Amino acid sequence: MTESQTRTERLAQWAANLQYHDLPEEAIQRTKELFIDWLGCAIAGRHHPAVAAIVRFATQMGPSSGKSEVIDGSLGLTSSPAFASLINGASSHVVEQDDLHNRSIMHPATVIFPAALAVAQDINADGKEFITACVVGYEVGCRAGEYLGKSHYEKFHSTATGGVVGVAAAVARLLHLDVNQTLSAIGTAGTQAAGLWQFLLDATHSKQVHTGKACFDGIFAAYSARDGLLGTRDILEGSRGMGAALVPGKTDPEAISQNLGTDYAILGSSFKWHASCRHTHPSVDALLALMEKHQVKFHEIDSVVTRTYQAAINVLGLTGRGETVHQSKFSMGFVLAVAAKNGQAMITDFTEEALEHAELREFQQRVTMELDPEIDAKFPKQWQGTVVVVCKDGRKYTESVEYLKGDPENSLTRAELETKFRALATYGGVTDSTKVANLLQKGWGLESQSSLHGFSSSL
Amino acid sequence: MTESQTRTERLAQWAANLQYHDLPEEAIQRTKELFIDWLGCAIAGRHHPAVAAIVRFATQMGPSSGKSEVIDGSLGLTSSPAFASLINGASSHVVEQDDLHNRSIMHPATVIFPAALAVAQDINADGKEFITACVVGYEVGCRAGEYLGKSHYEKFHSTATGGVVGVAAAVARLLHLDVNQTLSAIGTAGTQAAGLWQFLLDATHSKQVHTGKACFDGIFAAYSARDGLLGTRDILEGSRGMGAALVPGKTDPEAISQNLGTDYAILGSSFKWHASCRHTHPSVDALLALMEKHQVKFHEIDSVVTRTYQAAINVLGLTGRGETVHQSKFSMGFVLAVAAKNGQAMITDFTEEALEHAELREFQQRVTMELDPEIDAKFPKQWQGTVVVVCKDGRKYTESVEYLKGDPENSLTRAELETKFRALATYGGVTDSTKVANLLQKGWGLESQSSLHGFSSSL
Repeated sequence: MTESQTRTERLAQWAANLQYHDLPEEAIQRTKELFIDWLGCAIAGRHHPAVAAIVRFATQMGPSSGKSEVIDGSLGLTSSPAFASLINGASSHVVEQDDLHNRSIMHPATVIFPAALAVAQDINADGKEFITACVVGYEVGCRAGEYLGKSHYEKFHSTATGGVVGVAAAVARLLHLDVNQTLSAIGTAGTQAAGLWQFLLDATHSKQVHTGKACFDGIFAAYSARDGLLGTRDILEGSRGMGAALVPGKTDPEAISQNLGTDYAILGSSFKWHASCRHTHPSVDALLALMEKHQVKFHEIDSVVTRTYQAAINVLGLTGRGETVHQSKFSMGFVLAVAAKNGQAMITDFTEEALEHAELREFQQRVTMELDPEIDAKFPKQWQGTVVVVCKDGRKYTESVEYLKGDPENSLTRAELETKFRALATYGGVTDSTKVANLLQKGWGLESQSSLHGFSSSL
Repeated sequence: MTESQTRTERLAQWAANLQYHDLPEEAIQRTKELFIDWLGCAIAGRHHPAVAAIVRFATQMGPSSGKSEVIDGSLGLTSSPAFASLINGASSHVVEQDDLHNRSIMHPATVIFPAALAVAQDINADGKEFITACVVGYEVGCRAGEYLGKSHYEKFHSTATGGVVGVAAAVARLLHLDVNQTLSAIGTAGTQAAGLWQFLLDATHSKQVHTGKACFDGIFAAYSARDGLLGTRDILEGSRGMGAALVPGKTDPEAISQNLGTDYAILGSSFKWHASCRHTHPSVDALLALMEKHQVKFHEIDSVVTRTYQAAINVLGLTGRGETVHQSKFSMGFVLAVAAKNGQAMITDFTEEALEHAELREFQQRVTMELDPEIDAKFPKQWQGTVVVVCKDGRKYTESVEYLKGDPENSLTRAELETKFRALATYGGVTDSTKVANLLQKGWGLESQSSLHGFSSSL
């Protein structure tokens, strides 16, 4: 590390040189947990119409088969890594159950794992190489996202824009690119960064496009860097780079390279326990805690005020009442209605029937969001939830949660992760419990696998 | 057209319904001229290292062959339309000779033609269908670019960001998508819009990535829209759309849909006569006119001041002295030195030898750019050039040009286009004059072709 290095050069240097034996044990274990969680999401989302359209594109434009496995409805479909990850990146971002890295407001799993998995299969990398690359991908992607920050997130889907940079770094690591090639890969990735929130307003399919394309584009960046394509060296902080062009407010330059090798982004990612937009989770956890503590029942509640941060109000304000299952997961009122009524907000709670449920729709209207400046100031380092409930009999309660269920400070147990995985697999049509057990076993033993093949072939 | 339609819906409706017999004869003729001009650029750029890296990516990730032709160094390489256009879109943006649509500050040919050609080959469309689709692509792409405007162009490569939207519309027209599918294609394209100027600062290869990827991504948008993928309906003007996210200054909403079917963007595009950044052309034309009018010789010139618009100063200020052939085409001083010395600034004037030429380097230092508020106010509707030359003997002259050589108001003759095409083909290694003549003949007869195949097979 020299004085004249840019922060992005330092990051690339770290990424190109990380070795498996450098990793703390907890990072290895967390990578496996996140990978299994991601695999469940990919299986659960594989039948979505957006995924079907993308599969059709891949089969028309890509090779008829390849070394990388597609987790979709068609048995045994394979392709090149760019197309396999295009599809798997889309399918794992359908059911709103994929992880969330708090400080960057990104879902890293849905971009890093599909890309790294497909490339590992392509080049026959082993489990240790795969884990190392995923740790690199999380680190670079989340640091890019944290650098871009809250004001970027107002218009941009940071999972895609930070994600493509992380994918490029993960794939560069798998391909054993040197520092300059890794920097090129990061530069070429960043100049492709895209993904706007506009689709939330009319319930269209861009969310899956963004994550699938982040995989494809990041793979393009890394493979082409290996083959001599030069990417710009300061895509994050340069005067015509991502920070300058894509961030209307403040960037956080220190986030790019501080504490490299001591802080690990992969240890800062949260599992989603509820099957709704992560911005609803602080309020869901607070509401469920309140209802349990004071023994309040669904029918007793007159009104709920959730005190929250601006980004939640911005994102959740885009989908209106929630006319589709996907949109309904972005309605604070609807999600709290589901949680209050069912005592949970799991994947099976968000259905076409639920959308038509009069009690839920009526409760939904009695939920309001209010900006809380103190909570907003802590976001996104902390996703605090506070709810105020007024009961029909006049009782009034307030409850706050500091760490959500699934947060690094309040993580899921392996048993809970397996429960969630089974629910996701069932939702995706995998009902054979032996198959599910095999996948789990394979996932828990990731660091000992000599090959990454076989995660979709049995579906 | 109904009152409640958004401007983007009106644009999609027009795009989906345009027929060949609607086209004015001059639009048909101009399309052929622009296509031939583009083909020359693609041939000239095909040996660039960025293109070689992209070819390698395409052969690894795509099918081993397909119906779409690749214009590269490898004889007879074919692929799917997404990959063929990824390569051809890159190669046609190498030598800085592709067209420029003044009002949108975009190079539409390098994105619209490679995508439309590859798809036309894929689906066996004829020349009339191809021409119609290209007119659609120019219209939608340039209108998107004009809507995004000058402040967008400060950080973004509008050729890519407006271009991907135009590509989607052109391909949608070739695939005979209906209005809603066309709107989806435009939405999915726009949410992928990317391309930053950062690469100009370190002479890296992103320029070709941007145009190639605009082709690929626009094809993805249109094919997936046909197969059920929903794109957001108001990607241009929506509150989280391109205008909101990618434009720090003013957008021009009227540009999206005014005078549809009466004004044709394809008639507003300019041919590049000089082989340098288009922002140097106003000054080159003015300087050459001044030198001829007053019989001033290269060695007599003491200093040149070019009075220009802010966007030229921004873009041309990024490349410093110009250390590479490509960068040197973005140095106002170097380009004027070349023009003054050689009486032209053709593709053969920008060489490694020229970079080392002491007289050129010395002259370069005596050129300065000055912002002219009046000229700036007219830009980009008009690209006026004014130069002030002071001679070593004290003579001082000022010269202005209103319409550049190649502008729609001062277009190239077919003979000049053929001369330019031959120079580009020679530069790209095609020395057989019969082959060149055959390509020209095929191009001029485009509207009568039953197939678009065969434009690269003879190279």
